[in-house]
Amino acid sequence: MAKITIDFNHMLASGIGEHGICEEEIARYAGRIAKVHEGLCAKRQMNAWRELPHNQDEIVRDILQTAEKIREKFEYFVVFGIGGSALGMKALFSALKHPRYNELPREKRQGPKIYIVDNVDPDSLNALLDVIDIRKTAFNVITKSGNTVETMSQFMVALSMLENLGEDLKEHIFLTTDKEKGILRKIANEYGFQTFVVPDGVGGRFSVLSPVGLLPAAVIGIDIEALLRGAAEMHALCQKPALEENPAYMYAMLYFIAMKKGVNISVMMPYADGLLCTAEWYAQLWAESLGKKVDIRGNTVHAGQTPVRALGVTDQHSQVQLYNEGPFDKIITFVTVQNFRTNMQIPASPIEMRDTQYLAGQSFNKLIASEQAATEYAVTSAGKMNMRITLERVDEESLAALLFFLEMATAAAGEFLEIDAFDQPGVEAGKIATFALMGREGYEQKAEELSKKEKGNPDFCYECN
Amino acid sequence: MAKITIDFNHMLASGIGEHGICEEEIARYAGRIAKVHEGLCAKRQMNAWRELPHNQDEIVRDILQTAEKIREKFEYFVVFGIGGSALGMKALFSALKHPRYNELPREKRQGPKIYIVDNVDPDSLNALLDVIDIRKTAFNVITKSGNTVETMSQFMVALSMLENLGEDLKEHIFLTTDKEKGILRKIANEYGFQTFVVPDGVGGRFSVLSPVGLLPAAVIGIDIEALLRGAAEMHALCQKPALEENPAYMYAMLYFIAMKKGVNISVMMPYADGLLCTAEWYAQLWAESLGKKVDIRGNTVHAGQTPVRALGVTDQHSQVQLYNEGPFDKIITFVTVQNFRTNMQIPASPIEMRDTQYLAGQSFNKLIASEQAATEYAVTSAGKMNMRITLERVDEESLAALLFFLEMATAAAGEFLEIDAFDQPGVEAGKIATFALMGREGYEQKAEELSKKEKGNPDFCYECN
Repeated sequence: MAKITIDFNHMLASGIGEHGICEEEIARYAGRIAKVHEGLCAKRQMNAWRELPHNQDEIVRDILQTAEKIREKFEYFVVFGIGGSALGMKALFSALKHPRYNELPREKRQGPKIYIVDNVDPDSLNALLDVIDIRKTAFNVITKSGNTVETMSQFMVALSMLENLGEDLKEHIFLTTDKEKGILRKIANEYGFQTFVVPDGVGGRFSVLSPVGLLPAAVIGIDIEALLRGAAEMHALCQKPALEENPAYMYAMLYFIAMKKGVNISVMMPYADGLLCTAEWYAQLWAESLGKKVDIRGNTVHAGQTPVRALGVTDQHSQVQLYNEGPFDKIITFVTVQNFRTNMQIPASPIEMRDTQYLAGQSFNKLIASEQAATEYAVTSAGKMNMRITLERVDEESLAALLFFLEMATAAAGEFLEIDAFDQPGVEAGKIATFALMGREGYEQKAEELSKKEKGNPDFCYECN
Repeated sequence: MAKITIDFNHMLASGIGEHGICEEEIARYAGRIAKVHEGLCAKRQMNAWRELPHNQDEIVRDILQTAEKIREKFEYFVVFGIGGSALGMKALFSALKHPRYNELPREKRQGPKIYIVDNVDPDSLNALLDVIDIRKTAFNVITKSGNTVETMSQFMVALSMLENLGEDLKEHIFLTTDKEKGILRKIANEYGFQTFVVPDGVGGRFSVLSPVGLLPAAVIGIDIEALLRGAAEMHALCQKPALEENPAYMYAMLYFIAMKKGVNISVMMPYADGLLCTAEWYAQLWAESLGKKVDIRGNTVHAGQTPVRALGVTDQHSQVQLYNEGPFDKIITFVTVQNFRTNMQIPASPIEMRDTQYLAGQSFNKLIASEQAATEYAVTSAGKMNMRITLERVDEESLAALLFFLEMATAAAGEFLEIDAFDQPGVEAGKIATFALMGREGYEQKAEELSKKEKGNPDFCYECN
C-alpha cells in the first residue's frame, strides 16, 4: 500500500500570510474544476499513459522474462535514451536501489551494473568505454520515433563495437520504440532484434510506467508489479471529480492561482538523496508540459513555470538564503520520508566534542527530519508559499504513486491553463537546426541560413587569454 | 594560459529583439560602474578571497606535502563538508578528472577514491560505509565555524569507527577550519590533528581556491598551482575599472538591468557533463550572495535571482521547450567547450541505418557543438536573453578563471543591487530551529515554540493509503 500525505496548508494566506492564496481566490477558481475534470475525461482515450497501471499484464510477463535473461547473462546494462527515455528510469533507480549500487560486488547487487547514458559528451562516452566490457554488456536503446540523433549515434557506437568483436548483435541489443513507425522499428524487423513498445498516446515524459522505464527497472530487480499497483491506487484517487477528494486537482488549482499571481518558479526539494532524480523527472514533466507559447485557441500566452530541483538538507547551505529572503516568486514543494531504510546513529565521540556533544546518541534520521521541519518553519515564517508531500517510506508503491500523482496534477494544470500539455512544438526549431548543422539530407536551406553567421558587436565580447 | 571568450550579444535588443536590453538602458546604468568599482576596491581588504590567487605560496607547499602523504597511504578520501565546503571541490573534481574516476583501477587513478559527503541522509551514509574500508580512509572535515551540525555529526561517526578499530585518529583526520575560533580548532589543539586554515574574509561560497578546495584537489592530482595561475589571470582582467575591459562588470550590469526588467531566473547550461557541478557551484554563489531581504541602507528589497542549473544537450529534451516558448523571465548562460579531451567518432554501422546514416563518420564533438549552436539559435530566434562563455578547453587554468570570473561578477552585482553580497542572515532561523529540535542547550524556548504545532486546515491535507 502506498502511503502518502499531501499537505497544501502553507500555500494559503491562512498558513503564511499576505503572500498566500486567499479564500476568495479559491472560491473564484474552484468552480472551474468541473470543466477541468470534463477536459481530462475527454482526453482520456488519447492519454494512454493513464491506462498504464491497468493494462500491462502481458507486457509485464514479457519484461520479467527478458529481464531475467539479461540479469543472468550480462555484467553491464547500458540504457541509451534521453529526456523522457532516461529521466523516469533514473528516478526509479535512484530511489529504489542501494545508493552505491554499481559499486557493490555482484552478489550484493543481484543484477548487472547499470549506466543510463543521456548525453553526447565525448569525454563521458569515452569514459564509459573505459569501465565496461562490451562483450558482457546488454544495450537498451530507447526512442519512440527512432529519430533521436543522440540515441541513434550511441546505438551506432554499440553496433560497431559489438560487430568488431564478432558478437551476435541480436544477443546484446534490446530496442524500445514505436510499434510500427520509425527507423528503429524497421531495423528491428529487418535484423530480428527483440523489441518493446512505447504505446501511442504515451509521451516521453509520461512513459516511466511503460516498457521505457519498466524493462530497465526489472533488470536491476525493482518490483515492477508493485510500481503499477502503487500508480493504480493513486489513479483511483486522482480521477475523482471532487476537488476535496482529488489532490491532483488541488495541486493544479493552487499552482495555477500562484502562476496568475506571478509566481513563476516551482522548487521541488526532497529531503532524501534518492529522490533528487524524482525532482529532475518532475522538472521535465512540469516544464515541457506547461511551457507553451499558445493556448488551445491559438492565443499567444507564453505560459509556463520554471521548475527547480533542490535537495535537503544540502541546499539549505546553498539556496535557502534566497528562498527565505528573496522575492515572493516561488513555491517550494518539500518531499519528506518518514522511514528511511536505515536507522543511523550519531555515536558518542571518543574525544570531547564540546558544544556539539548534544548530538551524540541521536540519529541522522532525527537530524534530517528536524532540518526539514526547521526549514519549513523558516520559509513559512518568511511568508513564502510551500507545501509538503510525505512518503511513509520509499518503496515501489509509494514512489509510483508519487510519480502518478504528479502526472495527473500536470495534466490538470494544463486544463487550467487551457494549453496542450502533451505536445512540445518548441523543440522543433533546435532539432531542425541540428539536422542542418550535421548535414542531413533535406536540410540544406536551413544549413545555408545558419552559415550566414550574425556578427555580434565586438564591444560586448570579451577575450581572456 | 586560460583561454575564455565571454559573449553578451544575445542579451541585447540588437541581438534578440524587443525583450533584450536596449542602448538607452545601458547608457543609463553604465555610469554606475565607477561607483561599483569604488565599492569593490573599498571592500577588497575584507574580501580576502580576492587575494587567494596571490598569497598562498607557502600554503600550497604544505598542501602538496600533505596531499602526497594521503595519496600514498590511503585508498579512500572522504570529504565531510556542506554548501561552500563541498560545492567548489565538486566542481573541480567533476571538471578536471576522469568522468568515472572512482571506477578506475588504482593505477589509472593515481590517487585514492574520493567521496564528497554533503548530506545527512541515513541511507546514503550507511551506503558509503558499505563501499569504503575505514582503516584505509583519510577524512577531511571542513567547517569554518566548527558549528555545522551536518559535518560535525559525520565527523563523530568517523571518530567513533576509527577508535573502535583501534586506529590512530591523528593519522586519518585532517581538519580545515578557522585559524583560532570554533570547536574544531579547539579539538585540533587538544588532540594534535593536522589542520588547514579557512582564512578570514573568505566566505564558504568564495572558498574554492582556499585550502577548502585545494587540499582535496591536490589529493586527487589536480594541479593546484595551475588553478591559482588561471584565477590570477582572470583577476587581472576583472579588476580593471573600465566596463569595456572588464567582463565581470558587464555581466553584473546586464544581469542587474535584466533583474530590473523582471527577469528573475538565471539558467547556467554547460554543454559538457563535467561542468554541471560548476553550474551547481554558481547556483550557491549567485543565490546566497544576492538573495537578500534588505539593502545596505536597511530598506526591504527582497532582492535576488533564482539560479537554475541545466545541462546541454540533455536538457534540450527537458527544459528547452519551456525556454523557447515560455515566459520572458530568464537568462540562459551557455557554457561551451571548444576542445574536449577525447575525439569520439560516430562509426559507420554494420547494419543499414536508413535516415540516420548521415551521422556515420562524423564525431560526437561536432554533434554536441552543433546542438549547442542549434539551441542558441532557437532561443535567440524566440527572443530569449542568452549569453555564451566559451572555454578553449577544460583545464585547471580555464576552470579556475571561469570560477573567479563568476565570483567577481557576483561581487559586482552585489554593488549594483546595493546589498551585502557576503553575508547570509537568512539561514539563521532554520539553524536555530534545528538546534532547538535537536535539543541543544540554550534553545529551550524555541523548542517550546516549535512544539506548539500549528493545526492546518484538514480540507487542504490529503491522505493516500
